[in-house]
Order: sequence, then C-alpha cells, then structure tokens
Amino acid sequence: MRIIRDSTPAADGYRMPAEYEPHQGCIMIFPERADSWQYGAYAARRAFAKVAEVISLSEEVTVCAGPTQYDNARAILPERIRVVEMSSNDAWARDYAPTFVVKQGRDAAQSEDAAQSADTAQGVAVGNAGERVRGARSVRGIDWGFNAWGGLADGLYFPWDKDNAMARKLCDLFQKDVYDKRDFILEGGSVHVDGEGTCMVTESCLLSRGRNPDLTREQIEETLREYLGVSTVLWLPCGIYGDETNEHVDNICAFVKPGEVALAWTEDETDVQHAMSKACLETLERAVDARGRKLRVHKLPLPRPVTMTEKECEGLDMCMDNPTRTPGERLAASYVNFYISNGHIVMPGFGDPADDEARRILQGLFPEREVVQIYARDILIGGGNIHCITQQIPL
Amino acid sequence: MRIIRDSTPAADGYRMPAEYEPHQGCIMIFPERADSWQYGAYAARRAFAKVAEVISLSEEVTVCAGPTQYDNARAILPERIRVVEMSSNDAWARDYAPTFVVKQGRDAAQSEDAAQSADTAQGVAVGNAGERVRGARSVRGIDWGFNAWGGLADGLYFPWDKDNAMARKLCDLFQKDVYDKRDFILEGGSVHVDGEGTCMVTESCLLSRGRNPDLTREQIEETLREYLGVSTVLWLPCGIYGDETNEHVDNICAFVKPGEVALAWTEDETDVQHAMSKACLETLERAVDARGRKLRVHKLPLPRPVTMTEKECEGLDMCMDNPTRTPGERLAASYVNFYISNGHIVMPGFGDPADDEARRILQGLFPEREVVQIYARDILIGGGNIHCITQQIPL
Repeated sequence: MRIIRDSTPAADGYRMPAEYEPHQGCIMIFPERADSWQYGAYAARRAFAKVAEVISLSEEVTVCAGPTQYDNARAILPERIRVVEMSSNDAWARDYAPTFVVKQGRDAAQSEDAAQSADTAQGVAVGNAGERVRGARSVRGIDWGFNAWGGLADGLYFPWDKDNAMARKLCDLFQKDVYDKRDFILEGGSVHVDGEGTCMVTESCLLSRGRNPDLTREQIEETLREYLGVSTVLWLPCGIYGDETNEHVDNICAFVKPGEVALAWTEDETDVQHAMSKACLETLERAVDARGRKLRVHKLPLPRPVTMTEKECEGLDMCMDNPTRTPGERLAASYVNFYISNGHIVMPGFGDPADDEARRILQGLFPEREVVQIYARDILIGGGNIHCITQQIPL
Repeated sequence: MRIIRDSTPAADGYRMPAEYEPHQGCIMIFPERADSWQYGAYAARRAFAKVAEVISLSEEVTVCAGPTQYDNARAILPERIRVVEMSSNDAWARDYAPTFVVKQGRDAAQSEDAAQSADTAQGVAVGNAGERVRGARSVRGIDWGFNAWGGLADGLYFPWDKDNAMARKLCDLFQKDVYDKRDFILEGGSVHVDGEGTCMVTESCLLSRGRNPDLTREQIEETLREYLGVSTVLWLPCGIYGDETNEHVDNICAFVKPGEVALAWTEDETDVQHAMSKACLETLERAVDARGRKLRVHKLPLPRPVTMTEKECEGLDMCMDNPTRTPGERLAASYVNFYISNGHIVMPGFGDPADDEARRILQGLFPEREVVQIYARDILIGGGNIHCITQQIPL
C-alpha cells in the first residue's frame, strides 16, 4: 500500500463511481459498543448479520470484528463472508472505511466480463506496492480525517482514534494505494455521487463547526472536486430531523441513477421534517447536474416518527457520563438509507405502514435488482441505518 | 472459508509442498511479548523487519500485528509489505500459522507462468466459500491444535488461545478452506517435507508427553500421512540441545532438495550436541525416502555456543512468576533455521566465525537463490530463528 500525499485523485485521473456501478465487494464492521447499541449490541449484531448475508449473495463481504467479537462474528456469519480482526471505536463503515475512487485501465474492453475483471483486479492489487493497471480499472482509497461527527465541538464520542485509523488499515488489507487527506474531516455518509461528475452534500453537515471550520464553502467544494473527481457540488440545506451526524445526505437523498434522486418526504405539514424535506426539494428542483440535466426527484415516504422506548434506553451504557438516548427521543428513521449491492437493494423497514410503499417505490426505481427489506430498528437505535454500516469497493 | 471436518487432505488429493517449491507469499507476526523478547522487543522487531524486507523482495509478505503494535509495524515496514491487525500470544508464524497443502488444478499447463498463476489463484480464492480450482493449484490450510509447545505438561506459556486461533483466522483472511485438526497438537516447525512423499520429524518432539500422549507413534504417523499427503515419515531421534520446543526438526535438519538434507553439525566431541547430531546422522544414513532414495546429507557447521548475557536477562519480563532466561544459559543457535523464499535463502548469523562457512555451504546448495544472512541473536533469544517466524503460502 502506497500512501499518496503529493497528488489528488482528480489530478491522477480517478473519480468516485456511483454506488449503482459494479462492486468488487463491501466492507462492514461488527457492532459491540454498548453505549451505541442496546443490551450489549446483541440485537444489532443480528441485524448487521442479516444485512451482510443479503449483500454477500452478489458481492464479496468482509466484516471487521474487534478482538473480543471476532469469534462470535465468525460463528454467526456464513462461511462465504470473510471476517477479519480489526479494532474500531464503533461500527460505521460508511463513515470511516475508505472512499474508493477508480480509474479506467488500459484493458477497458475487458470490463464487460465482470467476473474476470474482479479476479484480475484482485490478483494484481495484492502484494503490489505501486500502481499496476490490468483488467478493468485501478482502484484507490481516500483516507479522510474522521472525528466522530464533529470532534470536541459536537462529536458523538471520544476518542475516535481507532475509527480514524481504519481507512488506511483497510487499504492495506485490500492492497489499494491510498490518498492521505486526514487534514480534511469528511465521512462517507456525507457525500453522494452520480458517477458522472455530480456530488450531493448537505450544508448542515459539511459547513458544521466541528469539521472544517477554517475552510470556506468554496474551499470545501474544491476539495470535493479534487478528491471525488466531480465538477458540480449540489448543496442541500439539511437532512433528516434529529440526525446526529449533522444530517448526512445519505439519510435524506440518494442518487438512484444519473439525473434521478430519491428524497425522503412527508406530506404531514405539522411534522418538522416537512419543511426540511421541502427545502431540499426546492434546491433539487433548481439544480442542474454536471451533465447539465435537471434532476428528476422521486419522493420516498417517511415512516411515522420512531421513538426510543424506556426499555431500549435502559439497555444502553452511558457515554461520557451521559445517556446516549432518552425515552421518547425521535430517531432519524428514513428509507433513503439503503445500500445498493450488485444484485440487491438492501433497505430498512420499521414495522411501519409506509414500509410496503417505500419498498414498492424502490423496486420500481431499481427494476434489475431485488429489493430486500430488513427490519432495522436495532440499527437505527445506534444512530444510522443500512447505508451507514456498509461501504462498497468498486470494481 | 469453509471449515472441513469430514475429510483429510490426502483423501481430497492434497499434499504439503516443500518449502523450495514456488510460494505465493509468506506470513509473519510482529513480536511484542516482553517475556520472550528482551527490552520490550524493540531489537526483535528490527530483526523481524529485516527478515520481512528480504522475503518481500520475491514474494508477498503479510505481517500480523496486534492492536497495540499495528501502527509501529506499519511505520517500520516498507509499503510493499502488507500489515494486518491480528491478535496473538507471541510471534511464531511457523508454529501456528496454517500448514498449507496444495492440489494440482485442471489448468495445470498454466503453472509455468508463475505470475499468472498467482493472480488467478488469488482472484479465485477471495470471497469464494467453496472450492474453485483455476490456474495452477488449489491451496488449503490445516488448523492443527497448538498448546505452546507442550501445554500444561511442559509448554512455554499460558494461555495460548490467541495463537491457537490464528490458523483459522489466517485461512479466513486469505480465503482458503481449512481442515480442522485441532484435536491433534502439532507445530509447523516440527515437520519438514520434501514435496515428494517424505516427511521428517523428531521423536523428542512428536512423542513428547505434552502434545499427543494418548496417540501411539503409528497413529501419529498415520495422521501425518493423511494430512501432509506423505507416505514415509523419517524419525530423527532429537534436535538441537536446549531447544525448548522439544527439539523441532526445523532447527536441526532441513530438506534442501528431494533426496538431500542439511544437518546441523559439530566436530567438537566434547559438545553435548555432537552426540545428538551424530545420532541424527546415523538415522539419516540408514533412511530411505518415499521415492526409495538414500539421502545425501550436507553438514552445516554450528556456531560456538551462544549464551545469554546478564544484560539480556535483565531486559526480559517474568513469565508466570519465573524468569524465562538465566545468565549463561545456552541458546539453540543453528544455521539450519533458514527460510527459503522464491528468490532468497534468508539465514541467521550470530557474529560467529562459522557464519561465513555456513553461508557458503548454503549458497552452494541453493545456487539459484541469493543467500542473505541476517544477524539473528535478537530472534534467537526468543527461542527460535528465521524459519520459526515465517510460514510460506505455496502457489
């Protein structure tokens, strides 16, 4: 693994592909933090395992487990899933696994044969320090700085050193060269790309005081252009109410194909979320993407407010002398927080009447993938959902 | 990774290749145990790093580092070496990394192209649960039981749980199916094979009371035949004086090619080792290998006795209330404890007049590989040498 400090992905011809482009695999982290996940995370681990199982039907899944959970992870997960030992502070692969970028290789004509490309890409990558492009594409990682969603200003836990170390460790594990951008705080869940030059973020997150307070909006945009290989940055004003990541974009709005997005929506004007989703909608209706297209917006209903029960709160350890959740607290539930695998859309369900409608809408938007809905309350309690606990490795 | 419990390598057509056959790579473990390695293992880490660097010139090296040493390992080792986080009790990859066995694949004709075979083998292996043979060969691991060289009878430390877990974890990491043979205690350093049906062991080790006391010599032989895919087991009586592994074969005698071995030797009849080496020589001179050959024995001189200094002993933590070494204690120094990489012979040196002669002899025995001698006192103090801290993954 080469650590690249003197160049950027854009300068080297790399771009971040969209999640709906082909994957080599997916990275997840096994949950154990007892102040994030109620009752020692036992229910969260089962939900994570279901997510991993579905994804592993169509791509290679590697689950990172800490030293004390390794044996349990290996025992719970099917043999086709690889389990590796890796320390972390918590389990949000989306936010601190590397963001991967790709560059079209010399043998691009071979890229139609996905299986062959996967073999070749892996074979070439392992054990080679320098860049070697064979098969379809060369893949590199980006190691952003991570500070638990806001550091000492408004972050969620301390310390976050093991999380912050993971991107580089994972690049080493997968033998991908990695861009060192630890001086810029960014989580994978705070950006979405269409794979054709457009990036979508929220102002509430990227302009938050706990991330890069000394950078201007323009400097942040420039960094996204240089590292994600995009030309256009769409700034939504906000995300989902109560989303403690400062409202990551991946919980409110996602590209479903170039020129089209799914937006979390509620018609209930008495719900504080209504104005937030409406503000995003207005931004999207005014927006033009990198290819000059107006965006088509698909509204995805929100479930009714999901709130913490007393029993759930009782099962949570204290975090830095404080409870992480209080009874009645509203969680940032949203169907937009789905993962696109090679073969499936893995989406959350909440036991809500809107579960079915949301599933039908997504199935219509992804006709070539099978939508699998997983009851995700036990993931949601941790503060995120299926997209937050997964990170794709592009082919 | 599939765990295979209902079959054996021999039954499935697998055999353990000789170390001089082509490798895909090598596994090592970063040392940190302060009762094995003096002064917090700082000097051992430097010696291990030198070994890893030389091996990585001609094959892929993966170094396993525990959570607290990961950052240091990554900083010390060159970028071309992969560092992965993995817990262990100590750092003897030879003894508890998997023993790998191979089976000739359908496309054996391709095996001349080593690079292509490596790519294909890796590409096919990653992420596939079942057996898929493409390219040259299929590789599987064996997960022997490990009990710290003798368990509670005469083992060297307690507990050994993390060491014992490593073989399976490494097979998972490398996506190799693995034979579960944890009910049989064996270390990798206690067997040598010629790749053509012959295995060489020592009676002092394999018949020791701390390993498989309920098995007869015949039952042990049968297990070696079934798991290593050999037909002949040569039993040397003993190993190197003071070798606390109950005298592993890999410190006294090694195959250098089919039909030829290197034997640690001293002409000094006043040295207790003389009678031990002579007993081995007599066994070897009587022996016939699996192909019906008499063995050609190359004598490799031993260095003068290497003993612990007071300062070295002062730098060692206590192990289970006792010092691990005492001043003046003789260490089991031997040039036979070398590693055969694709391009090199990585052998120990002790600052002894015999260093040069041993190196010249090995260079003559391996004319197509470059012999690199590494000052290995800081490895020897831990109780083994270069062969003990490495484990090859065959191609």
